[in-house]
Amino acid sequence: MLTTIGIMEVVDSFMMREIRRLLIGRPLHNQELSHEKLPKWKALAIFSSDALSSVGYGPEQIMLMLAVPGVLAYGYIGPVAFAILVLLAIVTVSYVQVAKANPGGGGSYSVAITNLGELPALTAAAALFADYSLTVAVSISSGTEAIVSAFPQLVPHALTIDLAVLFGILMLINLRGVRESSNVFVFPTYAFILGMLGLIAAGVYQAFTQPAPLIPPASAAKQWDWAVAFLILRAFASGCSSMTGIEAISNGVPMFKKPEIRNATITTYWMSAILAVMFAGISFLIMHYHIMPVPDVTALSQVAELTFGRNWAYYYVQFTTMLVLYLAANTAYNGLPPLLSILAKDGYMPRYLGARGERLSFSNGIILLSVIAGLLITIFHGNTEHLISLYAIGVFLSFTIAQVGMVVYWRREKSKGWTRRAILNGVGAIVTGTVVLVIAITKFFYGAWLVLIFIPTMIYIFKKVRHHYNDMSEQLQLPPEYTNPASLQHPQAKNLIIVPVASITRVVAQSLQYAKTLSPDILAVHIATDDETGRKFKEKWEKWNPDIRLVIIYSPYRLVIKPLLDYIEQLERTKAPSDFITVLIPEFETKKWWHRLLHNQTGWVLRTLLILKENVIVATIPYHLQK
Amino acid sequence: MLTTIGIMEVVDSFMMREIRRLLIGRPLHNQELSHEKLPKWKALAIFSSDALSSVGYGPEQIMLMLAVPGVLAYGYIGPVAFAILVLLAIVTVSYVQVAKANPGGGGSYSVAITNLGELPALTAAAALFADYSLTVAVSISSGTEAIVSAFPQLVPHALTIDLAVLFGILMLINLRGVRESSNVFVFPTYAFILGMLGLIAAGVYQAFTQPAPLIPPASAAKQWDWAVAFLILRAFASGCSSMTGIEAISNGVPMFKKPEIRNATITTYWMSAILAVMFAGISFLIMHYHIMPVPDVTALSQVAELTFGRNWAYYYVQFTTMLVLYLAANTAYNGLPPLLSILAKDGYMPRYLGARGERLSFSNGIILLSVIAGLLITIFHGNTEHLISLYAIGVFLSFTIAQVGMVVYWRREKSKGWTRRAILNGVGAIVTGTVVLVIAITKFFYGAWLVLIFIPTMIYIFKKVRHHYNDMSEQLQLPPEYTNPASLQHPQAKNLIIVPVASITRVVAQSLQYAKTLSPDILAVHIATDDETGRKFKEKWEKWNPDIRLVIIYSPYRLVIKPLLDYIEQLERTKAPSDFITVLIPEFETKKWWHRLLHNQTGWVLRTLLILKENVIVATIPYHLQK
Repeated sequence: MLTTIGIMEVVDSFMMREIRRLLIGRPLHNQELSHEKLPKWKALAIFSSDALSSVGYGPEQIMLMLAVPGVLAYGYIGPVAFAILVLLAIVTVSYVQVAKANPGGGGSYSVAITNLGELPALTAAAALFADYSLTVAVSISSGTEAIVSAFPQLVPHALTIDLAVLFGILMLINLRGVRESSNVFVFPTYAFILGMLGLIAAGVYQAFTQPAPLIPPASAAKQWDWAVAFLILRAFASGCSSMTGIEAISNGVPMFKKPEIRNATITTYWMSAILAVMFAGISFLIMHYHIMPVPDVTALSQVAELTFGRNWAYYYVQFTTMLVLYLAANTAYNGLPPLLSILAKDGYMPRYLGARGERLSFSNGIILLSVIAGLLITIFHGNTEHLISLYAIGVFLSFTIAQVGMVVYWRREKSKGWTRRAILNGVGAIVTGTVVLVIAITKFFYGAWLVLIFIPTMIYIFKKVRHHYNDMSEQLQLPPEYTNPASLQHPQAKNLIIVPVASITRVVAQSLQYAKTLSPDILAVHIATDDETGRKFKEKWEKWNPDIRLVIIYSPYRLVIKPLLDYIEQLERTKAPSDFITVLIPEFETKKWWHRLLHNQTGWVLRTLLILKENVIVATIPYHLQK
Repeated sequence: MLTTIGIMEVVDSFMMREIRRLLIGRPLHNQELSHEKLPKWKALAIFSSDALSSVGYGPEQIMLMLAVPGVLAYGYIGPVAFAILVLLAIVTVSYVQVAKANPGGGGSYSVAITNLGELPALTAAAALFADYSLTVAVSISSGTEAIVSAFPQLVPHALTIDLAVLFGILMLINLRGVRESSNVFVFPTYAFILGMLGLIAAGVYQAFTQPAPLIPPASAAKQWDWAVAFLILRAFASGCSSMTGIEAISNGVPMFKKPEIRNATITTYWMSAILAVMFAGISFLIMHYHIMPVPDVTALSQVAELTFGRNWAYYYVQFTTMLVLYLAANTAYNGLPPLLSILAKDGYMPRYLGARGERLSFSNGIILLSVIAGLLITIFHGNTEHLISLYAIGVFLSFTIAQVGMVVYWRREKSKGWTRRAILNGVGAIVTGTVVLVIAITKFFYGAWLVLIFIPTMIYIFKKVRHHYNDMSEQLQLPPEYTNPASLQHPQAKNLIIVPVASITRVVAQSLQYAKTLSPDILAVHIATDDETGRKFKEKWEKWNPDIRLVIIYSPYRLVIKPLLDYIEQLERTKAPSDFITVLIPEFETKKWWHRLLHNQTGWVLRTLLILKENVIVATIPYHLQK
């Protein structure tokens, strides 16, 4: 068995090293791993870009759901936004507990596997898988919408921009490793916070100094019925997307500088406070200006334009919003690849997802995440609203599982103040669990059903993978008969060497020369389409006289592979169990790549089929053509 | 070296045999080859469907070129059609000579290679390559246009119909073999001839019994200038597409029943006569009815509708036209694959294009032709007019080369009546050569430039391929030192076996067991990321004590492939020239296909790189997992 390698090493093996170095950077030594730790102010920028950037689409989603023509539910934006703020406070407090109890990172999954068992843990893992993939897709498409709002001429190129940012920037930055990314990310996150606070300050100042709102609210005639209730709940469900990413810090505790837990806790509170201010401010301004949906222009863009006009401040807000949303996509790169590596170590995902690449990042997981997000963006044509319908359910499902896990944890640990903590997490679990139900019901036909199929499917896959690895390690175990070194050598074991020959050439001569070093039992096999050609070949062979037995197989239907396979299968059945059969196959290595097209791939096909179907050893003898 | 296999055998090896049998039929024995010969009446249907079906688009192309709004050149349809009829007569007489002198088939290419040398022959081959590929593309798209004219609701599905006919019908029929195709083809060709003659008879009768044409010709005010001359020449060039396919019989002489030449000659005359009548009749009716271009309706459809009205006779004409055009595409399947096989035998194309498949057809060539035609149809969106601009130039280029070759042939042979024959072919050469110039100039910007780039490119490829095969056979020749059987055995040649090991498992034990049958020189190699793990592995190995030397390679950058390759390369440099190095690589064969995704492909990558880069033998030991 060979060691696991990363996909980047495969690529590297075939690619010019120079190009690779330029894109990805020099390899990092094992000992450089410990240096990849983050101070608080950097961690805030890296882990909070997801949560904070949600302001770019969250309040807008509430408005979109309530601004349905004909139903005057617009005035409910205020109460819905308030409900979300309360939810944010509860989830923040709950997650601080999670970080405290699980310094190893991994978030919901780690909590669940230690406290609740396999099924809840895998449910959380599947939910997080959906969540992270959608984070990348939603954040990128939303970031592009921010810049497209400012420059409408970019509208037709939105999808191209999405994919270029995903593969050309985010994937490459992450393959380079996390510490370098953090430097790239610090400035834009703070610039965005500054811009948002400036916008809110200016907008609120204008609102209170100008006598009346610019447009009077049309929501005066509120009338309560079940349709309105459904609209409000759906607006709440969509607005919950503003809270996605809040768990990022508790999943990334090991990346903080020491003392990790304390630093992570402080950072979480800061993040939530900033998010609350921005969310409340933008929601207020949306209501104040009575923003309505406009195609290809985001609500935030409308708010900024009404506050500042189309001046530099407006472009600053749009540009930093775009940047922070793109960077938010990066949060998922700090989240999913480590989670996949934990899953791989536990045997639920393929092993190679656990291998660190040359730059110490989990390169296979990074590439997997990029591919999935790319597919999501392409399938949904980069439409944020559609993607968001899939989004929040996975997030809140994993929130709920983590909270329930924490209740179990506190009850078992019974450490100082455990009842207070258990109650906090219990309330969190009930609230977030209710949110899951609300989202699943109100968004069911808008895409939530997809997620509700995806999560059980992933759980099934996790279990199947684990099952296979268990079977595998059982089969690989050294059986007792091999523990004695003498058993490795059967003095009477024979090795029959088969050399297929089409004509007598230098390659055949060299193959026979090699065969003679291996074993005295050698058999040359020739496939002839009719008696005539078979007889002629036999004559030539005897004249050459290489002192090796020749077998001629007749194939009147001009097949080559099948008769040879049949013959080898027949030999296989008659040999002793300790004997081996080795088939020698020459392979031409051409000087130019296109020469390869001129050579029939008989050897390759034969080799693949022999290994797939029979229990024989296939030895490939390279023949390097000189010109 | 292994025998060449067809792509169908590769597919077959991996596909369920039952599906294959259903689609392609039972394999045919070598001895069944001679039965695949055609009587005249069948050969006429098979080889002439291309030429005859040209009536479906040829006269229309003349009209399209002359019916330019604002220029009243419409009245020149008559003279242009007459010129094409004269050209047809000359080409027919010339091609009867070609068939007489080249009973082996292969047409222009065979004539040129024996009489003119390599370059003209390859030019002809390249021209025919373009011609046949375009025949398939033009005939299929034109056939679909015939049926779409009758049923306008099919317009949006035209491209889908094109591709379904190409891959779903034509390719499969041809993979089944030529004789079965002929039965499929005889009826529609004769049905088409009957329909056309009926249409012409009815139309001409109406024309002479009704006092005046339905619409008076608008071309009264003819005025001669260079623009009109250019239009007329371009109309002539487009109209020449009516003659494509006339060479099919001379290329297929060996497929006729004996006496082959006589039968081929008679069939050629019959074909030309029928073509001339149909071409003249349809051109007359187009002029008579003063047909103008209508989108998505062919000229022939307009003629049939004006003659019969929308009754059963109209649908009969459209349906048989569609059928015969689809069958015309089939002519290329009888032409290109045998030509490619001749080119392959001469070493100008990859060898596997020369291999007959299980059903005795040249399956690789058939698949290649289908793929190229499919690309052409897709790129040009199944637009017949655009494809025709590329079409005629290749045809007439190969006509010209064949005629020139014949002149040389008659001069050399000096058989009875050679001067008359040489003059006939000489006139043919001059006329067709002039046509090539006319097409190249008047159609240059409409696509002829593409063909004028394609032909030299193909000649370059032909030569490069031949060159590689020459180099190859030189390198494969048995050198003198191998003619003595004793030289195949170096008594002192050593074989060093390298077994990469990641951990001590059943697979490693079995690999070592196999290694011990090969050679006493065995080296186990382990890659460790740091000293600690390396030391631990060494301890374990010594405890197991398999009596085999272990080498530990340190790889602090977590790479696996590169350090191993470097180490093997180093061993390679220090070994004696007669020694061998064999690397044993285990390969897991999983029970279920998706299990394969769970195993890292390290073994595969290592194997590929070793064979590509180093001069070592790689032996793959299959390990079939039981669950």
